Amino acid sequence: MDLELQFAVERLHARYAQALDSDQLEAWPGFFTENGRYRIATAENEERGLPLPVLYAEGRAMMRDRVQSLRHANIYEPQRYRHMVCAVLLEKISDKELRSTANFLVIRVMQDGATMVFATGRYVDRIALPEMQYEERVVICDSRRFDTLLAIPL
Amino acid sequence: MDLELQFAVERLHARYAQALDSDQLEAWPGFFTENGRYRIATAENEERGLPLPVLYAEGRAMMRDRVQSLRHANIYEPQRYRHMVCAVLLEKISDKELRSTANFLVIRVMQDGATMVFATGRYVDRIALPEMQYEERVVICDSRRFDTLLAIPL
Amino acid sequence: MDLELQFAVERLHARYAQALDSDQLEAWPGFFTENGRYRIATAENEERGLPLPVLYAEGRAMMRDRVQSLRHANIYEPQRYRHMVCAVLLEKISDKELRSTANFLVIRVMQDGATMVFATGRYVDRIALPEMQYEERVVICDSRRFDTLLAIPL
Repeated sequence: MDLELQFAVERLHARYAQALDSDQLEAWPGFFTENGRYRIATAENEERGLPLPVLYAEGRAMMRDRVQSLRHANIYEPQRYRHMVCAVLLEKISDKELRSTANFLVIRVMQDGATMVFATGRYVDRIALPEMQYEERVVICDSRRFDTLLAIPL
Repeated sequence: MDLELQFAVERLHARYAQALDSDQLEAWPGFFTENGRYRIATAENEERGLPLPVLYAEGRAMMRDRVQSLRHANIYEPQRYRHMVCAVLLEKISDKELRSTANFLVIRVMQDGATMVFATGRYVDRIALPEMQYEERVVICDSRRFDTLLAIPL
Repeated sequence: MDLELQFAVERLHARYAQALDSDQLEAWPGFFTENGRYRIATAENEERGLPLPVLYAEGRAMMRDRVQSLRHANIYEPQRYRHMVCAVLLEKISDKELRSTANFLVIRVMQDGATMVFATGRYVDRIALPEMQYEERVVICDSRRFDTLLAIPL
């Protein structure tokens, strides 16, 4: 795997993290290809092969809808996320596709300042080349316990 | 942005983190230019444009004073920090200046072993070239709640 | 330090983290040289020069034994680890050996979903070249307080 590619993928993950952490939700669909897929699952269900995503979105249009509803419909307590991403490993599938795995940790900070480890797990991505966009991003969470109000994308 | 520069900045952030985590406070001013500025702020105040830093230091001399007072005057319970830094994004402002943003997470470990997420947020830095020193480092914390004894630099 | 080497070491640390986090314990000894050493210590004891490792293994055979006993003998509550590794700094000792230091944070997730910061600290490694394997990996934990059942390698 060459260095330029590694750097470009790490930059993609970093831009994704900083966008979400800066509440730039409207930028979120743009990290995916037009028909890109996004899925949050638990490690337990992934290992058992259970097709029960905690959250699923396919295509930018559906993602934009989700962002809209987060902005306008849902009521949720103001909160901040802070994404930490590391241990990025790449595998080249073809000239048009990379597979990337990475470890993540998301901290949630509530408006009153209360801080907690919100989620940990792995990103398993298929990345379209040369667009450098997610064809698929699967967020596999270590914990089976989820906040009922999983509002913001991980 | 070229790879060499990315690598050099990540190395700067890493050396900074390891120095603080190893209690090498005396090395802290040396990461800044002679007149470099250091500021800790909350995300809330930054967004509102309120000039109310939690902590402020301008120039190495002032930083050295702060380290001195931490060493000699202040009484604080022995503690360790552990800095995690990731998602480093660069923007070249000129031949003499880079802008860097990064996510951070600081864990605090008290002498009895109690461990907590102490702070999360973003580093927003202006880095002088070719010195590779902070012209300005702004530590923007996600939480508004701060330990009253914010003793050690973040 | 050249970029290729930095990248190769970060990849080694990433593969190590992902292997442990995916419960591929059998892969663990393979990250070390045949006679490689692994040691978990506390920062306090390291600074005092006390040779009291929390855990010690020398050579792949001893590591394989440990994995075997974890798999077959010990009873421990199912749990997941998530390793975050960052701030990797290298120093070339010779053509055959690198020294690497890095910050780490390990999150533990119990089967019921309870999530906690399990350990933080530094990896201090000696890496054999060109094999890119740990000749020695010392895990220096910030906290003196340890779970009595430190089952899985850090």
